[in-house]
Amino acid sequence: MSLQMMGKAAKEAAYQLATTSTTKKNRALIFIADELEAQQASILAANQTDLEAARAAGMSESLIDRLALTPARLSAIAADVRNVVSLPDPVGQEFDHKVLENGLSLSKRREPLGVVGVIYEARPNVTIDIAALCLKTGNASILRGGKETFATNQVLVTVIQSALSKAELPQSAVQYIEKPDRELVAELLTMDEYVDMIIPRGGASLHKMCKQNSTIPVIIGGFGISHLYVDQSADLERAPDVIINAKTDRPSACNALDTLLVHKQVAAQLFIRLIPALNAQKLKIVAANSALPYLDGVAQLREAAEGDFDTEWLGPTLGVAVVDDVHDALGHMREHNASHSDTILTNDIDAAEAFINGAGSAAVYVNASTRFTDGAQFGLGAEVAVSTQKLHARGPMGLEELTTYKWVGKADYLTRQ
Amino acid sequence: MSLQMMGKAAKEAAYQLATTSTTKKNRALIFIADELEAQQASILAANQTDLEAARAAGMSESLIDRLALTPARLSAIAADVRNVVSLPDPVGQEFDHKVLENGLSLSKRREPLGVVGVIYEARPNVTIDIAALCLKTGNASILRGGKETFATNQVLVTVIQSALSKAELPQSAVQYIEKPDRELVAELLTMDEYVDMIIPRGGASLHKMCKQNSTIPVIIGGFGISHLYVDQSADLERAPDVIINAKTDRPSACNALDTLLVHKQVAAQLFIRLIPALNAQKLKIVAANSALPYLDGVAQLREAAEGDFDTEWLGPTLGVAVVDDVHDALGHMREHNASHSDTILTNDIDAAEAFINGAGSAAVYVNASTRFTDGAQFGLGAEVAVSTQKLHARGPMGLEELTTYKWVGKADYLTRQ
Repeated sequence: MSLQMMGKAAKEAAYQLATTSTTKKNRALIFIADELEAQQASILAANQTDLEAARAAGMSESLIDRLALTPARLSAIAADVRNVVSLPDPVGQEFDHKVLENGLSLSKRREPLGVVGVIYEARPNVTIDIAALCLKTGNASILRGGKETFATNQVLVTVIQSALSKAELPQSAVQYIEKPDRELVAELLTMDEYVDMIIPRGGASLHKMCKQNSTIPVIIGGFGISHLYVDQSADLERAPDVIINAKTDRPSACNALDTLLVHKQVAAQLFIRLIPALNAQKLKIVAANSALPYLDGVAQLREAAEGDFDTEWLGPTLGVAVVDDVHDALGHMREHNASHSDTILTNDIDAAEAFINGAGSAAVYVNASTRFTDGAQFGLGAEVAVSTQKLHARGPMGLEELTTYKWVGKADYLTRQ
Repeated sequence: MSLQMMGKAAKEAAYQLATTSTTKKNRALIFIADELEAQQASILAANQTDLEAARAAGMSESLIDRLALTPARLSAIAADVRNVVSLPDPVGQEFDHKVLENGLSLSKRREPLGVVGVIYEARPNVTIDIAALCLKTGNASILRGGKETFATNQVLVTVIQSALSKAELPQSAVQYIEKPDRELVAELLTMDEYVDMIIPRGGASLHKMCKQNSTIPVIIGGFGISHLYVDQSADLERAPDVIINAKTDRPSACNALDTLLVHKQVAAQLFIRLIPALNAQKLKIVAANSALPYLDGVAQLREAAEGDFDTEWLGPTLGVAVVDDVHDALGHMREHNASHSDTILTNDIDAAEAFINGAGSAAVYVNASTRFTDGAQFGLGAEVAVSTQKLHARGPMGLEELTTYKWVGKADYLTRQ
């Protein structure tokens, strides 16, 4: 089927999904979860094909691990789908209701976006996650996974589509672009007649390509340097725990700490307490000139070079700089793409407010780890992406962020005067 | 100054505006309103220059009228600015507050978008409107008006900037692109490093250009065919008033009725009542084949041709078709770009719900005129645009829609476990 025809079919499916009851959408989700377990053998066999191809192509072990399914991982994916069943359906919710003087009863009603296009790589669980979240919110989805997961995704989409049929919903509610050509991605990005939102889940080059070529609104997300600023008034006994947690709880995550900024008045006292922990965690410290005088005793230390403070480390490296005050810290953050998650450790209300309002980040913390920026942690139940753009939604995007609203006005044959 | 430098200056100004108090922003707005009146002579003289150039270029009288300022119009613009002063400032509002089990106190806090780029034509009041709404919400703005209003806008921006200085705010909070080259628009659309949102206020070709070339999120709006569907259960005595109001209250508005759809069971009875009013209003009726049998006695009647039902009339023309039921009406609306404002006249709850949920429009009405889609009518105080896209905001966009939010998490040195 051509991409245009898939788009048209998705739009048709979206019309039907928009008025499908929550019960019926949940039935389809339960069927998907059940089928994932029932079809375990064929899913794992297909995954084996992908894994062999990946090994033959010399893919790194960490990427192969992201790609691999096991019975336990498949059960976890099925459990995630059942969790989506248990989440409240945002579609149809009314809010901001008011009655105008002329008698017009006005409210906003939540409804699906329509058709969501998702471009992603590697991990096959994304196929199920996104399909489930879109289905729950009454959106049709067009998925485009990476070529590394081609065999696995093909089976997964067959499982989804047979569950859709069983639930008497159109199979075109979840479609998969089978050819992994980049050209098809470019075509998808201009199908604004059919597609309402594009979610790229991948590296910076994918986001850039979407931003430059899409005529459809794109959710940009996942990037940004995470900072933690230790203010003059911070509790220096407790600060190291938060710093180490932000850095080491999961260094590969996008909310893991990249840069530590420290107020000059407390730099000496803080680093005395912090350096043993940095060494114990085998962290590599990349230091600005301002910080070097304080870092005697750091086991792995080098001077920062051009671009270091613009690097998301995604591993056991930490940038360190010493600053004059909270405003100097904010200046550093503005220069170095603070847009995801940033923390201030402070006991000073003015400094906290200046930091909250001045940081350009999607999530700002006072006396808490940057690691909390996450749909599950925020109690959203699930997330489709972490938006670092300013329009539509910001930070972790759950079910509600997969919806839009329409204004609904009701009256008694009311005319405008 | 180069456009890049303007962008950089705007971003700097935005940092300052983000933490400027409401009192200070309101003072600047009051200065703008006062200066508009104090500088009346020089503003009207500049406007005279534009008007003479427009006449020499053979511009139509209706466009010249949009361009013209008078003492009364200038006072009205100043009054609009004072009205913005009286509106509540959304910046800093917190919402969706919750405390998680681990003690993280989490909320969303409204903040400015940053830098807003606005591209518009003709009417000089837009310069003041947009500058005022952006200023109130702490956004810096980069304005690019049409060449027809060049002299007027230059004086208006001088007035704004001197008011900004008087209020001790940076002049770069409101900047104007002085060269009316299309190339500069193209450059603005890719300045995603500095600009956070683009609002095009103009025709379809401007919107298309923005959609295709912008790497910055664009607010698409203002278009869409407006429909009114008369259901079988409608009150046929009162229906004509609503139809005539939707069509004739202001035919040039984007929420004016374009297409009337009528249930076949009531078509004969409705048109008997409606035709005298259509003739009295001198409306030109463009009829689908389905409607022709009912339209004997219409003074100005022609058969619909290809594309007629995709035309926003913006004048005294009305498309008419007869349909089988509400679902047939929705089918017609989907084919013909219902995305702005649509009405059902009905006494049937099922039909009303089907229509509300099935219509793809930003605003859907039950038993009310399409003419209500408007920031002032909806009680938003003012509007920057009417969005017909699904992301960020939909329908009339007021002050709140010029903001984004950040997540704010506060705790007591909390780490993720």
